[in-house]
Amino acid sequence: MKDRVEFYFDFSSPYGYFASLRIDRIAERANRVAAWKPIMLGSVFKETGSQPLITIPIKGEYCRKDWDRLGRLYNVPWVLPDPHPITTLAASRAFYWIDEQDPDLAKAFATAAFHAHFGEGRDISPVDAVADVAEPLGISRTALRSALADERWKKRLKDEGGGAIAKGVCGAPFFIVDGEGFWGCDRMEMMEKWMAEGGW
Amino acid sequence: MKDRVEFYFDFSSPYGYFASLRIDRIAERANRVAAWKPIMLGSVFKETGSQPLITIPIKGEYCRKDWDRLGRLYNVPWVLPDPHPITTLAASRAFYWIDEQDPDLAKAFATAAFHAHFGEGRDISPVDAVADVAEPLGISRTALRSALADERWKKRLKDEGGGAIAKGVCGAPFFIVDGEGFWGCDRMEMMEKWMAEGGW
Repeated sequence: MKDRVEFYFDFSSPYGYFASLRIDRIAERANRVAAWKPIMLGSVFKETGSQPLITIPIKGEYCRKDWDRLGRLYNVPWVLPDPHPITTLAASRAFYWIDEQDPDLAKAFATAAFHAHFGEGRDISPVDAVADVAEPLGISRTALRSALADERWKKRLKDEGGGAIAKGVCGAPFFIVDGEGFWGCDRMEMMEKWMAEGGW
Repeated sequence: MKDRVEFYFDFSSPYGYFASLRIDRIAERANRVAAWKPIMLGSVFKETGSQPLITIPIKGEYCRKDWDRLGRLYNVPWVLPDPHPITTLAASRAFYWIDEQDPDLAKAFATAAFHAHFGEGRDISPVDAVADVAEPLGISRTALRSALADERWKKRLKDEGGGAIAKGVCGAPFFIVDGEGFWGCDRMEMMEKWMAEGGW
């Protein structure tokens, strides 16, 4: 089994979206597999006393420009959704439910959810919106609705968030390679160098 | 006269130290000159509601590891000073006083101050410590003490900080190239690409 790159993200984080478009190729180049792990960034913010970037004076304006710039740099679809940020409980719980059945399908779902949200500006907070994303991938709306009502997936998401914080995840996106943490989509190049060189 | 890269930093910021060791070469490769501008990061924090990284739960631990890692990556002297963070009013006012007489000497002073602090772990908050850094560069202790007591340099530092915030400086280190802002030492490669390509 290949070594992993843990990729922690929140579906409502623009930097997570940009990272999601690159993480699998970066992992593959290091002969690893990316393990995608949605978490509630709000839970991390409670620990660190942070707030969503867009709500912070000066930083909010900087980030709007920076997101536009990253969209142009990577030449990928990008729109700042309205509303932003949103609660991504449904999409995140759905992810873990799908992931248990088929990890590749879960990544396809996450990619579609990110695209719907940041590529097309769709609000993906409602359960129906999550079902709209999942259905074209062959995922039954009824089964999805049942899963989202199941305590098991609520607990799983909560546990993943708690586990992330216990491992030192202090923001998102956040990557862990053999216990070494890298915070931010602007650290992906450094992480790639770390993997290629076996650390330094 | 060459175009500039504005480099905003706080003498107490580890990321500013790491940036200071690379900014001049990056500017030169773009046929520009780096304009060094110390500011009080605390003034920015008042606007953004932030705190020194090391005091923030989880982020503090991450940053300690990250600073050690950057020291090894760049193969430069690195020690986390005790105390950290410190107030860098004296060093910053001294910088602007020297800068008016001789910008190259001001950079040499700033480099020496950063080295004393993060290379050797010396506390550079006291006026005497700043004089210890300046004296080997041929800067008179007496003249330095007079300058630090002069309202002019207190005002200059305050004005530079206010000007930075007005330009959108939301943290430090922060770089501005032709009005385009880049926040963080991990954005220097992107800034270099921006300068090489004339934006995107």
